[in-house]
Amino acid sequence: MIKLYEHPFSIVPWRVRIALREKDLRYESVTTNLYSKPPTAEFLQLNPFAQIPVLDDNGFILAESMAILEYLEERYPQPALLPADTQRRARIRQLMCWGTDYWPPAWKQWMAPRLPAALADPWTDASVAEGRQAICGHLDVLQQQLQDKTWLVTDYSLADICYAPFVLVLDRVELGDEVTRRPELSAWVQRLLQRPAVSETMMPPDDAG
Amino acid sequence: MIKLYEHPFSIVPWRVRIALREKDLRYESVTTNLYSKPPTAEFLQLNPFAQIPVLDDNGFILAESMAILEYLEERYPQPALLPADTQRRARIRQLMCWGTDYWPPAWKQWMAPRLPAALADPWTDASVAEGRQAICGHLDVLQQQLQDKTWLVTDYSLADICYAPFVLVLDRVELGDEVTRRPELSAWVQRLLQRPAVSETMMPPDDAG
Repeated sequence: MIKLYEHPFSIVPWRVRIALREKDLRYESVTTNLYSKPPTAEFLQLNPFAQIPVLDDNGFILAESMAILEYLEERYPQPALLPADTQRRARIRQLMCWGTDYWPPAWKQWMAPRLPAALADPWTDASVAEGRQAICGHLDVLQQQLQDKTWLVTDYSLADICYAPFVLVLDRVELGDEVTRRPELSAWVQRLLQRPAVSETMMPPDDAG
Repeated sequence: MIKLYEHPFSIVPWRVRIALREKDLRYESVTTNLYSKPPTAEFLQLNPFAQIPVLDDNGFILAESMAILEYLEERYPQPALLPADTQRRARIRQLMCWGTDYWPPAWKQWMAPRLPAALADPWTDASVAEGRQAICGHLDVLQQQLQDKTWLVTDYSLADICYAPFVLVLDRVELGDEVTRRPELSAWVQRLLQRPAVSETMMPPDDAG
């Protein structure tokens, strides 16, 4: 039995949902709210850093989306989400790291005025504008990467899966125009949406929280 | 020819120096100061996110320390810094991600009052104390991981290499006691220092900058 500790409105765990679905692995979703509630002692046993996603693969517990995606790839290699070529694998991992390192801080800056005050980092108009600018700069890097390409690095891979949740929520937070004005990026988003593993694991339409 | 864009006082690129030395790969170090100077247009061609380290392996350019370490492991597999076992590889990657995700923000909080004001994030006594507490909590996780073990995950691996630069600078910033008071952690630091790849790639003794 595979369990995934996640939350329907949490963005990073969605990466793991997509990979599990691509590999046709059934799993039990354990809804875990770390956003407005302190972590339980039981959850801290699973991840001392109190973050989702956490995977439980028949008792083998693993946190951190990038570590989980690499594990799933090695343990359940079909269909492959990483190619055999070393340089392509390296480029994919560079993108996985770029997304994980630089997207969330920019996102938090942009989102701060949209969150309940108790959950938002302190913000100013300047910090919100800085967040938007960083997101747009990041989209420019993706747009550049997608010149004459169908996917970020040759074939569909973990790089596309890692960025999919980030870009697919932009239209919910007044940044949809930043996708549509970048034609290669926009076409890639459409290709992502055509994959059942993406469309069937989508975040629910409205955050009632 | 391998080139590494780095800086002698930068912490994360030190990971790559250690791995290159473990694998006995000669390289040219290109000193890159992104700390007090804006990045050049040439450097942004290498890494649009303007961070070091960047590796240039005979023209193949790669940023992000975790992507670089995985690449070196695949391209130059001997001596191995990742085991064959899938679960051990996953635990190592979880630690690599934990260090990369959670150590730097805590470090920045702790270091803010020690930096020139122009380079430091805004800080308060409370934010500095929060940084120290997060670093100590992280050291507790490592100490727990090292119970009855020589290295973080069975054999010496990329997990040890990723944390080595973080823990080996603690005595320079009034946190050395936090290592010595944790016996398993302290013994592991001594073992790290006995490896030529660590001792010979050490940060210079004083930051004259």
